[in-house]
Amino acid sequence: VRIPSDLVTPCLLVDRDVLEANIAEMAAFAVASGMALRPHAKTHKCLPIAAAQLDAGAAGLTVATVAEAEVFAEVCSDLFIAYPVWADAARGRRLRELAERVRLRVGVDSAEAADALARHAGPLEVLVEIDSGHRRTGVVPERAGEIALAAARAGLTVRGVFTFPGHAYGPDAARPAAAGEAAALAVAADGLAACGLEAGVRSGGSTPSAACTDASVVTELRPGVYVFSDAQQVTLGACPPERVALVAAATVVSARRDAVVLDAGSKVLGADRPGWAPGFGHVLGRPGLVVSALSEHHATVPWPDGPVPAVGDVLALVPNHVCATVNLADELNVIRGGKLTERWTVSARGANT
Amino acid sequence: VRIPSDLVTPCLLVDRDVLEANIAEMAAFAVASGMALRPHAKTHKCLPIAAAQLDAGAAGLTVATVAEAEVFAEVCSDLFIAYPVWADAARGRRLRELAERVRLRVGVDSAEAADALARHAGPLEVLVEIDSGHRRTGVVPERAGEIALAAARAGLTVRGVFTFPGHAYGPDAARPAAAGEAAALAVAADGLAACGLEAGVRSGGSTPSAACTDASVVTELRPGVYVFSDAQQVTLGACPPERVALVAAATVVSARRDAVVLDAGSKVLGADRPGWAPGFGHVLGRPGLVVSALSEHHATVPWPDGPVPAVGDVLALVPNHVCATVNLADELNVIRGGKLTERWTVSARGANT
Repeated sequence: VRIPSDLVTPCLLVDRDVLEANIAEMAAFAVASGMALRPHAKTHKCLPIAAAQLDAGAAGLTVATVAEAEVFAEVCSDLFIAYPVWADAARGRRLRELAERVRLRVGVDSAEAADALARHAGPLEVLVEIDSGHRRTGVVPERAGEIALAAARAGLTVRGVFTFPGHAYGPDAARPAAAGEAAALAVAADGLAACGLEAGVRSGGSTPSAACTDASVVTELRPGVYVFSDAQQVTLGACPPERVALVAAATVVSARRDAVVLDAGSKVLGADRPGWAPGFGHVLGRPGLVVSALSEHHATVPWPDGPVPAVGDVLALVPNHVCATVNLADELNVIRGGKLTERWTVSARGANT
Repeated sequence: VRIPSDLVTPCLLVDRDVLEANIAEMAAFAVASGMALRPHAKTHKCLPIAAAQLDAGAAGLTVATVAEAEVFAEVCSDLFIAYPVWADAARGRRLRELAERVRLRVGVDSAEAADALARHAGPLEVLVEIDSGHRRTGVVPERAGEIALAAARAGLTVRGVFTFPGHAYGPDAARPAAAGEAAALAVAADGLAACGLEAGVRSGGSTPSAACTDASVVTELRPGVYVFSDAQQVTLGACPPERVALVAAATVVSARRDAVVLDAGSKVLGADRPGWAPGFGHVLGRPGLVVSALSEHHATVPWPDGPVPAVGDVLALVPNHVCATVNLADELNVIRGGKLTERWTVSARGANT
């Protein structure tokens, strides 16, 4: 990414060539593996990127919230809210309206939530969420049949099961997480079958584990981060450094002998930092130069070897977790051949409800 | 904070009575100590709160960016950008326009930045930033005179020195940080005097260290978080739990025997977590019930004793670092006596440039 000199820092840049290569590569992988691709739109929150994913063959989109579904219904007619949605009267009304506009599926992991969905949103299509080892939401695979049956009895249409193998985020964790994902989805599907319900959809996938997915079990992949990649993916080896498509352009505002401070802080990069990450992000193309300290408007980068950049220099920082980064921005500056060609609105920024 | 049942979660609530008490208390402390109060508006980013701080006697406001100054110039005629601002032609023009509207002061910590400010923004008033131990931006106190002289020679008007005692954020760190702050500002002021420049303003202060500030050296306090407080302040003992004025209302979306998962994740709470924090936030009034794991739309709260809340229950979560939380929201829901009375726009959300 070359940084156009007419940009005001801090701001986010997207290298469009790299973005398109990332979209094409995951699409080709899904086709070759025989799985449907349903990218998670929470990463980019942008309509033009959603449209590009659909053009490249995505079967539909994944979203995290009803509000995100409302945004992406503008460009996509097949949406899955991969979340155990709780419906009160107001949210139920929104779900009902969405289901009239697009093919809609939502997640469920309790009989209580199934009852609330049926009562307030009507006869939705649902997938039962399974915990395949990430220990967040979802029931243990052995309980999938019980939840599916409760959902069916409440009046919902059960289409299958899903899981998020989030425990793939860790050193050498992708392969075991993908194995756990397949095992859990298989047990869950058997559980549905035992109740006379078919798990036609067995949905999984994350960016770091996608390549290891067991396509003999998993029918649908839901990676999100792959469109941009980020410092976490580079650290995990899930993405080569040259496939990073989004950076924060940041100006050096203070310099000392062996470190610089830049103007892209946590209100630009986001503050996500898992224990295994070497910092809060790194300098593009220099994974060894990490953001060692981060405050709201300051990113400190130790610069051990050679002369430090000068005050006023502009650098490209790779954020740790790009989903958080994008959600802090109103727009993405799209770069092709070193030139700003477009600005994309982050339409679903803050769409949390 | 009682949570009105007509709110859609996740969302942010402000208890107006507690907010007003916090504003009044810090104003009274500043008067009693003989220091000017210049609250940092990056915390709340809201015009009505800024106006309340000014009504309570604040001498002006602190902001972090030129964009924040542009927002708060609507309600405040005396602004300090407590940041080593780098001015190119575009930012210089904005600073010049601001300086015509309000009394404006800007931070500087290098001769290069001073030259750029003078060239692009004209004869601004500046304060030299000093590192009093936080190791972020600012020069060592012994170099304050050198930077002040460079600024004056470039054509800027030097009004004094400032520091941020950010190393007050840690267990038992407030008192030594405040002592370091005073010592550094005193050395820096002497350095200016030795160059024939007067440090009429010696500005410092943070929420955790405010009460320990040495008013024989420090002339101006810049706390920000005190208006709302947050889980960090409660953990540090800088604020009693009942003085927390902002929470995220969150719905339980999934429950297991000994934990619940709520719908306010990192895209609502923010992901800040210093090493000494017990979690990513806690349940209001129950500092022992912490958010142990946080993803974008999930907050996991282990619930060791007694029955867990039910799916669909709404809880109030206290975020770790309220500045990050507010910057993720478009509006704050203002509550008085358990009822929603107003919505305040987060006018400076995302104002990072």
